[in-house]
Amino acid sequence: MLIRLGFEITHSFPEPTPMLLTLNLHDSRRADIAIAKELQTSPAVPLQQYHDGFGNVCTRLVSPAGSFTVSSDMVVRDTGWTDAVVPTAQQIPVYQLPEETLLYLLGSRYCETDKLVEKAWDLFGHTPTGWARVQAICDYVHDRIQFGYEFANATKGAAQALEEGRGVCRDFAHSAVALCRCMNIPARYCTGYIGDFGVPPSTAPMDFSAWFEAFLDGQWYTFDARHNFPRIGRVLIARGRDAADVAISNTFGPNTLERFEVWSEETFVEALIPR
Amino acid sequence: MLIRLGFEITHSFPEPTPMLLTLNLHDSRRADIAIAKELQTSPAVPLQQYHDGFGNVCTRLVSPAGSFTVSSDMVVRDTGWTDAVVPTAQQIPVYQLPEETLLYLLGSRYCETDKLVEKAWDLFGHTPTGWARVQAICDYVHDRIQFGYEFANATKGAAQALEEGRGVCRDFAHSAVALCRCMNIPARYCTGYIGDFGVPPSTAPMDFSAWFEAFLDGQWYTFDARHNFPRIGRVLIARGRDAADVAISNTFGPNTLERFEVWSEETFVEALIPR
Amino acid sequence: MLIRLGFEITHSFPEPTPMLLTLNLHDSRRADIAIAKELQTSPAVPLQQYHDGFGNVCTRLVSPAGSFTVSSDMVVRDTGWTDAVVPTAQQIPVYQLPEETLLYLLGSRYCETDKLVEKAWDLFGHTPTGWARVQAICDYVHDRIQFGYEFANATKGAAQALEEGRGVCRDFAHSAVALCRCMNIPARYCTGYIGDFGVPPSTAPMDFSAWFEAFLDGQWYTFDARHNFPRIGRVLIARGRDAADVAISNTFGPNTLERFEVWSEETFVEALIPR
Amino acid sequence: MLIRLGFEITHSFPEPTPMLLTLNLHDSRRADIAIAKELQTSPAVPLQQYHDGFGNVCTRLVSPAGSFTVSSDMVVRDTGWTDAVVPTAQQIPVYQLPEETLLYLLGSRYCETDKLVEKAWDLFGHTPTGWARVQAICDYVHDRIQFGYEFANATKGAAQALEEGRGVCRDFAHSAVALCRCMNIPARYCTGYIGDFGVPPSTAPMDFSAWFEAFLDGQWYTFDARHNFPRIGRVLIARGRDAADVAISNTFGPNTLERFEVWSEETFVEALIPR
Repeated sequence: MLIRLGFEITHSFPEPTPMLLTLNLHDSRRADIAIAKELQTSPAVPLQQYHDGFGNVCTRLVSPAGSFTVSSDMVVRDTGWTDAVVPTAQQIPVYQLPEETLLYLLGSRYCETDKLVEKAWDLFGHTPTGWARVQAICDYVHDRIQFGYEFANATKGAAQALEEGRGVCRDFAHSAVALCRCMNIPARYCTGYIGDFGVPPSTAPMDFSAWFEAFLDGQWYTFDARHNFPRIGRVLIARGRDAADVAISNTFGPNTLERFEVWSEETFVEALIPR
Repeated sequence: MLIRLGFEITHSFPEPTPMLLTLNLHDSRRADIAIAKELQTSPAVPLQQYHDGFGNVCTRLVSPAGSFTVSSDMVVRDTGWTDAVVPTAQQIPVYQLPEETLLYLLGSRYCETDKLVEKAWDLFGHTPTGWARVQAICDYVHDRIQFGYEFANATKGAAQALEEGRGVCRDFAHSAVALCRCMNIPARYCTGYIGDFGVPPSTAPMDFSAWFEAFLDGQWYTFDARHNFPRIGRVLIARGRDAADVAISNTFGPNTLERFEVWSEETFVEALIPR
Repeated sequence: MLIRLGFEITHSFPEPTPMLLTLNLHDSRRADIAIAKELQTSPAVPLQQYHDGFGNVCTRLVSPAGSFTVSSDMVVRDTGWTDAVVPTAQQIPVYQLPEETLLYLLGSRYCETDKLVEKAWDLFGHTPTGWARVQAICDYVHDRIQFGYEFANATKGAAQALEEGRGVCRDFAHSAVALCRCMNIPARYCTGYIGDFGVPPSTAPMDFSAWFEAFLDGQWYTFDARHNFPRIGRVLIARGRDAADVAISNTFGPNTLERFEVWSEETFVEALIPR
Repeated sequence: MLIRLGFEITHSFPEPTPMLLTLNLHDSRRADIAIAKELQTSPAVPLQQYHDGFGNVCTRLVSPAGSFTVSSDMVVRDTGWTDAVVPTAQQIPVYQLPEETLLYLLGSRYCETDKLVEKAWDLFGHTPTGWARVQAICDYVHDRIQFGYEFANATKGAAQALEEGRGVCRDFAHSAVALCRCMNIPARYCTGYIGDFGVPPSTAPMDFSAWFEAFLDGQWYTFDARHNFPRIGRVLIARGRDAADVAISNTFGPNTLERFEVWSEETFVEALIPR
């Protein structure tokens, strides 16, 4: 299938302000881009791209004072398949995990494994290991946390989200990631686009989404404690230890968010016909 | 000068247990090793080394059940100079910072910049930028936190340490790192050896130490909010965003710490004469 | 200025055949892409992208048997400036060179420094160091080698090109790179697009171009021994030690090249209007 | 088993001269070091270590004028096992090779695949693929090239070595590596220590040795076209595309080699008893 996706984000700045953006597609999807205005600004400013330590494509720029818009618009090819479901996927013992996964066993800003390790073993120590254990964690988080945009809070981590029982998609992801790590299953946070494909259209305005990946049987599998069932058409922007690593923007000065629109819709032509 | 340094750490394990160690010297000091038993275990087990994402040398192993000792003993060359003091070092504006430093502006597990940013600007927004600002942060943390081994707490971050006003060397480092980052100065956490060189001998048992580095004028400078004056003979083990990245050991199972000894003393021969 | 650039390359394969392509723009130009069909194939096949050890974007695919076309079409923003000319740029002594440049002092497949080092010192040992020495090398190579597409030869290296005095743009680049390295100036090979901007239009069919970069005064400067004067509108695809590292395609099986078209022209709209 | 290994190399320099050394053990063996003077110089000079693009540990220094010695002496643990022999190891089709192996399919300074590809397919196109094919290549090279220190030549590559039929261990390795690559089997060059373990003592003075690795069945296997049978006690220093990447020293100025001694012998104590 073809997906038309993009965003338009406008800030207002009292003075020239440096920004870091994590808003390009992930390199693993670069070959799927059919046609793109990948990242444009109005007014136009010089853009500088680099890869962060997790391999994500980031952009640096300095916004001028005043109203400043960053936008993207692309057509991306997708298999149209749902997230893989592999209940037989085994857990890898710590001593056999590949080195590059070990980082994803440790605590991080919003995944405070040190605070949750006892609770995790109490809750999941008797579940079967592997896929079933990750699914048990997703079920627990999905039931435990009530979704609501009004519960968004930039300083909230997994420990607080699980205690309050309220949050947005990033809190579901942080909570499940933290619990997986406590159980010695490498888990990493993902951010990207997900449209309403194969599900009833949502009435809420579209936003970027957060999900996570767990390492089982030698590969990373997608899980989503918020929706808690296999979805179609995720398009990855970035992965990291948690939301601190992959904030869509870091702005180094005061500003006002004036407009925020995200889209991810099926299309049938490889062209950017005006929306 | 020559420094004889090393450690001997014994755990007792009820069953075979995977461990990750960050106990080798940092690569930047590898060329200074005059003679070494760099990492040995008793009983001997296969060791596997790798570099983590920050460039630190890590070791993986599986301890057998029972008493298990990890040790190291080396003679290392050192200039004998104190930490550099460069009060003229300027702060680099965010838009000019090298890409590899940007990670060290973001929040991390124990450096919750999101919780401290307002306080930081209230406290330091009117201090001169650059070296003086980092020093003002060190002075503040040094005065604000009372040192005491009894205040150690594995889940404590900068926000809690500054609120309680109590901590160990890692809390001093986390607090200063978090405040620097809030002020847009890249800062990273360091762990390593520091002996009592040029200072009265301490009566407390020796331990590994934590300090930090701030990025000014295009390079990383050493700061130490705990001691808050230039020291001699630091020998780096590892650097990261905070203590979560560079724990000296991560142990994936229950265990009891039976013995913990660290040494770092001046020597005059390039040989490992029995201590 | 805006540059419309791209290519269309058709091979015919007797059987399914793996290919490696180095035909995406270099990451350093990714932020300049205004609109793009970056890499498309006909028939469509799965594409897999990765970065090689030099940081270039590469694509892997398996062509089906039959006629197979790879194409790209993009509009790219460019400053419109000529290559920088900085005659005061100093040569960095070997002991002060950054580590990542040292690789570009060594011999490589088509830059046989071991065969040319004596000749290089005879020719250039008495020229002023730094920019002037690199320019002296460019002048020598430019005068010494006669350009002609009929002189292209995939096994020809710098030593043979200089001896024969005949070659194509890659031979000019290899020769100058090899001579710079012999004189302890790091030099690397570049491949990309260059249109006829600010020069009389060429009558020859357009092709990708090769040039090189020399490391002086702490940065890489562009040189072009083939044209031997500052050009406008180079758009980089890849850099490496020599053409062996950045071949536009490596094809692992027999094939026939049926069509090869490259374009790089000024445009005035950020749109891919049919050419 | 325990192996005592090291070297002592003395050059005489008319003036201060920068050097790059690839003489540390490879990181993969760092955990096996029982006790070490890893790299020392006389007179002592500052050493700077870094990892090259292949992951090898390199050392930079500036030798003073006069006589200058670099030495190392270590005791290293080794399994004592011979090189693995796995005749069932399959060849991986190019389209399934991991990305990091693709570099080792391309031509390099001393492995001129472009010159040898036709000959390679004529010779080995009808042999069984996988392990048997690599072994057929080793057999061919072993029979085809006559060993003799007097045949050493720094500008000789695989094409010339195979044509002349004369060479030293690096020529055997280059020839086999080039032929493997021609047959689409990733192959890389290795340099390190090998003592006379399990073989009659050699009367020739000991030197560093060259061998190679071929990628089969998802891993790198050791092959040695010079000795052409499984050996005990190889200790790796560095790997690269060929000898140009891993020269034990690159010296940037005139010099005379005054002394060159290498040792690699079984020992029974973890101590550097004077030899």
